[in-house]
Amino acid sequence: MAELGPPHDAVDVIRAKRDGGELSDAQIDWVVDAYTTGAVAEEQMSALAMAILLNGMTRREIGRWTRAMIASGERMDFSGLSRRTADKHSTGGVGDKVTLPLAPLVAACGVAVPQLSGRGLGHTGGTLDKLESIPGWRATLSADEMLGQLEDVGAVVCAAGPGLAPADRKLYALRDVTGTVDSTPLIASSIMSKKIAEGTGALVLDVKVGSGAFMKQVDQARELARTMVELGTDAGVTTVALLTDMSTPLGLSAGNALEVRESVEVLAGGGPADVVELTLALAREMLAAAGVDHVDPVERLRDGSAMDVWRSMIAAQGGDPDADLPKARESTTLGCPASGVVSCLDALAVGVAAWRLGAGRARRQDQVQAGAGVELHAKPGDRVEAGAPLLTLHTDEPWRFERALAALEGAVEVGTTMPTPVPLVIDRVST
Amino acid sequence: MAELGPPHDAVDVIRAKRDGGELSDAQIDWVVDAYTTGAVAEEQMSALAMAILLNGMTRREIGRWTRAMIASGERMDFSGLSRRTADKHSTGGVGDKVTLPLAPLVAACGVAVPQLSGRGLGHTGGTLDKLESIPGWRATLSADEMLGQLEDVGAVVCAAGPGLAPADRKLYALRDVTGTVDSTPLIASSIMSKKIAEGTGALVLDVKVGSGAFMKQVDQARELARTMVELGTDAGVTTVALLTDMSTPLGLSAGNALEVRESVEVLAGGGPADVVELTLALAREMLAAAGVDHVDPVERLRDGSAMDVWRSMIAAQGGDPDADLPKARESTTLGCPASGVVSCLDALAVGVAAWRLGAGRARRQDQVQAGAGVELHAKPGDRVEAGAPLLTLHTDEPWRFERALAALEGAVEVGTTMPTPVPLVIDRVST
Repeated sequence: MAELGPPHDAVDVIRAKRDGGELSDAQIDWVVDAYTTGAVAEEQMSALAMAILLNGMTRREIGRWTRAMIASGERMDFSGLSRRTADKHSTGGVGDKVTLPLAPLVAACGVAVPQLSGRGLGHTGGTLDKLESIPGWRATLSADEMLGQLEDVGAVVCAAGPGLAPADRKLYALRDVTGTVDSTPLIASSIMSKKIAEGTGALVLDVKVGSGAFMKQVDQARELARTMVELGTDAGVTTVALLTDMSTPLGLSAGNALEVRESVEVLAGGGPADVVELTLALAREMLAAAGVDHVDPVERLRDGSAMDVWRSMIAAQGGDPDADLPKARESTTLGCPASGVVSCLDALAVGVAAWRLGAGRARRQDQVQAGAGVELHAKPGDRVEAGAPLLTLHTDEPWRFERALAALEGAVEVGTTMPTPVPLVIDRVST
Repeated sequence: MAELGPPHDAVDVIRAKRDGGELSDAQIDWVVDAYTTGAVAEEQMSALAMAILLNGMTRREIGRWTRAMIASGERMDFSGLSRRTADKHSTGGVGDKVTLPLAPLVAACGVAVPQLSGRGLGHTGGTLDKLESIPGWRATLSADEMLGQLEDVGAVVCAAGPGLAPADRKLYALRDVTGTVDSTPLIASSIMSKKIAEGTGALVLDVKVGSGAFMKQVDQARELARTMVELGTDAGVTTVALLTDMSTPLGLSAGNALEVRESVEVLAGGGPADVVELTLALAREMLAAAGVDHVDPVERLRDGSAMDVWRSMIAAQGGDPDADLPKARESTTLGCPASGVVSCLDALAVGVAAWRLGAGRARRQDQVQAGAGVELHAKPGDRVEAGAPLLTLHTDEPWRFERALAALEGAVEVGTTMPTPVPLVIDRVST
């Protein structure tokens, strides 16, 4: 039947992947472009996505698929900038506010950070949602505004415009409703098409592993990291990935304004040890990937220059860095179930609780609460007394407490012996 | 996330099958019903169909899926009829006109045949397309007309109404454009949901095997046959399947009016040996499945009573059994490439040629030509002389010859020794 059809036919492409074959460059270019323009229907792309999920893709196929998604839209160009650029992408975790201190810190070290970011969906928060808890701050910038801020301030965190990899935007929404999210080729090409189109010169990936992360197993995470590092390298972007632990939340808070507060503490030279450690590790990788190795980011935290960039960055996007952050109207505190050492504080449970308290959204169109979330008073390895405060829950709507508490059932374990410490940075993947 | 969704969620169902799990009865009932009403979107069902194609279904799942598709619409009931009922379904082959002589023959033996049939798509012809080449004949009957004709004449071949298994109608159209046709569970449940909803008491399946059939391998065909026999049996319909050869066309013609002519020859006591053999084999199975074993169908061909039922059946649906059948305006004849014995005459090539001559349609909305098709002057095993007529091609549009001839390239092999004879009935599958 193919002879009577157009040069490429959606059913032929679907069948080829369904039957375990490799798609040709021409087939990939055609199907991604035809999907973007609507000539390939949503139901055809979802069948193809399921076939890709179940039968996989070769390195060549993933690379071509990524290129085709980049080619579906605009591509930004920072080559006219006076500084080198580096960006970071995290696959998402609970309490992962690292972008907030990291972007100004790296900028303070002389490398510009052009970060196009997203909103949260489900139990992991979104960087834009967090920054929007700062009164006045706006996520939407024009390309010119972004470029100007990069030159003047050195760091931008803003929303990706609709012109960047529109094929990915369409495909991501489709995968979300068709059970085709969990595919390494599709995840890797989705992330990397946006990051490559964004035009960054260097890229550091923070691939989270553990209960609160998308990837529960180290092997899966390492494969995703390797695939993305290959894609970046093949596209001429210096790319490195860290595999980092997400079995317990990062820092002592999960929630929008709560995390901004903690980020400002880090920029002020304090903050929780794990957030500081990860921020510095990622900063060093970004600086090295951008070829800047003579600056110590620890100094830039100490001397206040990272904080200065933060304040300029927030102000440049309309935010007031001195404004009081929103607080939730209601709160309730959970005590420790026993005396001893915290052996487990499950990241997923805390993430779901924060989400149910109003910090996250169940549907794309939902609003988030700026003040909602969970504060942690102890972390795995900490000694605690029975009845002492362990978690504080915040929300504007007290009816949410019950469902948040249900999510936390069994999430905390207190034992008698010290748990084996889990390294925060589990592995490093580079070419 | 599931806890916040409805009791069943399309993504959960898709994921369960994607990850190799079994769907529960409740999940199957819900997803089929929600798809029929539109609550599950086309792109969600196509992802599920691909997951089913690649990961399979258990007997329980297929049975439940079939029941859910039946439950999506009306169910016919012939229990008030004075005779038992039996129907036949063929998975489709080239030159497969057997329904035409078979339905009146079985009716002449005392068993009513209520056949809801379809139109052709691709290289296999449709029974309704064939009968529509008879001037005046109409495929659409109301349920009352069908019941009346079954009682009065004993045989009906007509189009299935939109009320019968609407879930299957919708799903079939979707599978056609999403590369999810070739799945035994989906094929079996599609065929059997319509046949069970149709209300027949007994069912004989003609599962074709070979180049011109949907199933190219005996093992595949046997699995499909076994699955369908199980589905019918579980639903209380006495069901038997024959696996029959489709490596070469059935009879000496492929095309609408050409096949009606050949069918009438069989009813008149003549016709090609293979068509007669298969018609009788299927008639005996239908009679046995309906519990009528005292009548010899050979007698009913010989005494003209099958021909009488044919004439009544055609006339009851507005057709003129004595009218001249349409002939194509143009024809061209191919000679034998060599002298010897025909060792191969490929069914698929002849089917595609007939289709390209105008006997079939490429898209559902296309018209077919009544007179178009291919006549065979020899079959595998026949001795032929170089240059003697081998195939005659018929069409109203001579530009079609070139593409039809291209399809026939390499389709005929003439050798020096007799080919090993292939039995027409390869196997029989029953519970």
